[in-house]
This record gives sequence, structure tokens and C-alpha cells, in this order.
Amino acid sequence: MRKSIYSGRIVNLGLESITLPSGVDVELEIIRHPGAAAVVPLHADGTVTLVRQYRHAGGGMHIEIPAGVLEPEEPPAVCAARELSEEVQLAAETLTLLSAIHTTPGFTDERIHLFLGTGLTPTDGTPDADEYLQPIRMPLTKAVAMVRAGQITDGKTIAGLLLAYLDSTTERDGAPGGRSSRSAAQTAKRTPGE
Amino acid sequence: MRKSIYSGRIVNLGLESITLPSGVDVELEIIRHPGAAAVVPLHADGTVTLVRQYRHAGGGMHIEIPAGVLEPEEPPAVCAARELSEEVQLAAETLTLLSAIHTTPGFTDERIHLFLGTGLTPTDGTPDADEYLQPIRMPLTKAVAMVRAGQITDGKTIAGLLLAYLDSTTERDGAPGGRSSRSAAQTAKRTPGE
Repeated sequence: MRKSIYSGRIVNLGLESITLPSGVDVELEIIRHPGAAAVVPLHADGTVTLVRQYRHAGGGMHIEIPAGVLEPEEPPAVCAARELSEEVQLAAETLTLLSAIHTTPGFTDERIHLFLGTGLTPTDGTPDADEYLQPIRMPLTKAVAMVRAGQITDGKTIAGLLLAYLDSTTERDGAPGGRSSRSAAQTAKRTPGE
Repeated sequence: MRKSIYSGRIVNLGLESITLPSGVDVELEIIRHPGAAAVVPLHADGTVTLVRQYRHAGGGMHIEIPAGVLEPEEPPAVCAARELSEEVQLAAETLTLLSAIHTTPGFTDERIHLFLGTGLTPTDGTPDADEYLQPIRMPLTKAVAMVRAGQITDGKTIAGLLLAYLDSTTERDGAPGGRSSRSAAQTAKRTPGE
């Protein structure tokens, strides 16, 4: 049972009464969210294009992967391509799903589909007026070092960068860490286009 | 300027009017959250203890690292130790900060301090009655493979496991991927205790 408290542009807050698998009844504050998509744009030279973005809720400037909220009925890959063009003016020949993460499942159903974007070419997209962001390009290995140093703190960006990095160094279905002979640049060079 | 809409147990929702660095005025739906702490409990044999947990907002059962919301004024490491004992009945000799992630900075200030817990010993903690969770222990490499296969989707858990895994295989301040000779088990064996 859900008692609606607020319906906004992005956020829908309600109180939901449920019975846990253990039989205990609880009332939870739940944010229903339309979901989102994000892309790790990996260039053939082993660099990634990120965005430096002002996040009021996040307390200032953040370095993030390009991302946006799903429009009604919009497939996540379409949303990812749209945001990639709007935010960093790139199109990807190939979008490969890395994961679909739950950002914080204790209080929201928000799910972000994370894609690896390769075969990148320029577009003439423009950002939304209510966003403030600047593209920033750096080696994937540097971005991973910034994650590990605590300089990149956005959850979806950490997940996307580390998953892309592991995919660039080891086979996904093999034992992770079992192979590490290929560098990010070497892997990306196999991508056609760009 | 903030107009409060709802103040609940975990979630505080308000509308905040701000001016972006670009000069554009916007009104944002913002959830103010007390913050949280989480631990990757890494045993000396290279396994981790996770929790299988029911998440109503997340649509069912999730495999997560032990975590909880900060009490007022509670230091994150104290919260992490408390949740480690309550959720998986473990105490850590050493808690090392991996990162403090923003779960979803577009609409909340929630920040989760992620720790690596080593030197693990049993405790007699018990879970809160309003949670439903079961400890589950597996090799860190298996947990990382589940992340990469899309079977573990919780954002903080993905960040914590992948950061712990990278720390177990490469030096944090060196070029990531530059060294990969040490396995997770070998690193953990250096930890005293347990």
C-alpha cells in the first residue's frame, strides 16, 4: 500500500507499507524514480570523455560520466546516446551494457543502465540550459586512479569506470584478475570507426 | 532557499532554489540524508562476507556489503563497525577508508563511507528487527565476477568490491593495472589477527 506524499519533476515520494519475508510489517519512505542511463565514452587512444558538472545536492563540482534521466518509454540505450551527444557531443558506434545499477536501494527504485561507448565520432549536440557542465578528457587509467584516490566520488561513475577498466584488462567471464595482458588502449584499438 | 515538503525517518525532501555557476536559476527536488557507512569484510583466506537482503525499493533480494545509516554525530567508522557486528557478526581489527561515494548526486546529498575491514573476528551482534538479511561468504574474486555479470547491482557494493579488488591486486597510488602480481588472498594474509 502506498500513500503518496509528493509528485515532482524527477522525484515521487511515498510511504509504502509492506511485510518483510520474515513476516514483520514495516512502513518505508520510498522515492519512485523514472530511471536513467549513462555512458563511459572510451576513445581508441585509451582516453575517456567525462563531464565536470555542478551538483547542488552533491555539494559542488563533480567529475562524472555523461548521464541522464529516461524519458517516458525511452529505451536506456537511446537515452544513453542522447545524453552522450548533448553532454559531450559524441556519438558511439557501439554501446555495450556494463550493468544496470541500483543507486541506493534502501529508499529509491532508481536504476541506472551503464554502457561502454566505443567507435566515437563528434556530433553537434548541446547541453540542457538547466545543467552546467564541461567535457574533460583523460586516460581511462588516470580516471581510475582518481576514483581510487577519492577524487571521483559519484557512484555511477565509479561503477562505470571500474567496470570498463576491468573489461579492458581481463575477460568478463573469466576469473577476474586471471588475465591482464591487454591494456585499455590495446582493447580500444580494436574498435572500428573514429 | 529551501521549501520543506516532508521530514521522515531517513528522508527529508525539499524544493531548493539555486543559481547555477552559469547564472541560470533552477528549482531542484533535493533529498537531504544523514549519510551512511559500509564495509567490505575481507577475510584472511581471500573471501568476503556479504549480506543477502530484501530491498523493497530495489524490487527484491540483493547481495550487498554490510551497511547502515549514520546516527546523529556518529563517526562513519563507528557506524561501519556497528553494522559489521549487527549484520554479519564480525569485528574488524582494521577499517581502511576506500572512498566516500555520492550515491546519486542529482537529487540527494547521501554519501556512503566505504571501508575495507580486515583482521576479522566473530561477535554476537544481532540484526535490527526491521531488516531481513542473511550473511553469505564467497571469494572476493567470485563477488567481483558477479558484479561484472550484472548479478550484484547495488551501487555501494559494486564500488566497495571493485575498489577492494583493485587494492588487492595493484598499489593504490601507482598506475592502476601497472602491477598485478599479488592475489587478494596473498594481500589479506598479511593482515594480523583472525
